[in-house]
Order: sequence, then C-alpha cells, then structure tokens
Amino acid sequence: MTSTAATSRELPHPERDEIRLEGVLHALSDPLRLQIVRELATDGDELSCSAFDLPVTKSTTTHHFRVLRESGVIRQVYRGTAKLNGLRRDDLEDLFPGLLDSVLAAAERQAVGLGDGG
Amino acid sequence: MTSTAATSRELPHPERDEIRLEGVLHALSDPLRLQIVRELATDGDELSCSAFDLPVTKSTTTHHFRVLRESGVIRQVYRGTAKLNGLRRDDLEDLFPGLLDSVLAAAERQAVGLGDGG
Repeated sequence: MTSTAATSRELPHPERDEIRLEGVLHALSDPLRLQIVRELATDGDELSCSAFDLPVTKSTTTHHFRVLRESGVIRQVYRGTAKLNGLRRDDLEDLFPGLLDSVLAAAERQAVGLGDGG
Repeated sequence: MTSTAATSRELPHPERDEIRLEGVLHALSDPLRLQIVRELATDGDELSCSAFDLPVTKSTTTHHFRVLRESGVIRQVYRGTAKLNGLRRDDLEDLFPGLLDSVLAAAERQAVGLGDGG
C-alpha cells in the first residue's frame, strides 16, 4: 500500500481473490460499460472519466465507472481532482485466462457487424 | 420450420443475428443461470427444467430459463408437457468465437477455487 498526498483519497476496490465471475460478466453486460472497457483496452490505462464521450449524464457515467470498479474490472485512482481509469488486465487474466480478450473480441465482432466499428 | 403436433407450442427465440453480446453476458451474470449453463455444457442438450436441482422456486427457475432463452444462450422446445433445454453452442460460437468456452472455463476455475467444484 503506497500512501502519498496525491493518492490519499483511495477508492474501494475488491482484492483479486474477491473478484467474482458473475460480477465481471454483469459489469460487461451493459453497452456503455462495454464501450468504456473497449476504449480502455485500446487507448491505455490512464484515462480520466471525462475522456469518454458517453451519451449520458455525468452522474450516470460515474455510476457505470463505479460498477466497473466494484466488480474488479477497472482500477480507479485519483490524480488531483480527476479519476484515472485502467483495466485490471493482470488480475482478470490471472483469475479467468482468456475471458477478457474473448469478450473484447466478441464486442469488436458485434460492432463491426452492426456497422459501428469506428 | 417444422410443425408437428409435438412441437406446435413454440417458444419465442431470437434469431442468430438478433443475439446481442450484452444480453448473453447479462444472462451469464447470475450464479444460478451460470450453473444451468454449466450443467447443459456437461450433461448434454436435452435436459428438462426439472432435471436441475436449483435452490429456488419453480417460478424463479422458469424465469431463469426464460432469460437464457430470450438472450439466445439456450433453446427450449416442448416435448409433451416438459420443456427440454439445450445450449445454442453453434450460434454462439459463430457469433462470438471462444466466448462461451472462456466463460465456462472461468466458471470452472472459480468453482474449483471456491471448493464447490463437485
């Protein structure tokens, strides 16, 4: 546990062994949350919530990020007043090898098939 | 479309191209539904709802099977008064290659890890 001024406000995350498959699947079962996860997978691990162009209110966006965090799919850390988001790839891969990649591949196939792959 | 006396009561199913990833993940995000899918994957494709030993009421069981059917995860057909259930493996594999197997493997790992793998 590192504790500096910059990270003194820590958000609750499940430990690796507290992450449940059902919770991960539930977190990924929403179109917007799936979009967030796809963008994190593509664009890297230090994206603030405001980097995502989601067609919902700020409070709904916050809700979706919280579901992703509390299920163990993403890690959120404060940097100043911004929350930075990253996928918990290593934890998920350790627990459920291949699962995240197969979901991302499925999401990509569906997006291409539906003509909104861009 | 076959239509015989035995299959005259047909239940609504999404066509393959109507199956949505989000709906599949939602269907799989419940512990009991995941258990049903694991049993269908292990024990074959013609199991009646009553073959499953679920710790819930009959109406709740019916609800879970309906969620699985309406999301495209299982196919349900009447045989007399019983509904027989089978995984839509081919449809899911065609749409989302590897997804079902990675979820089943993840469920198996979690079950073994939690000591309820039997």
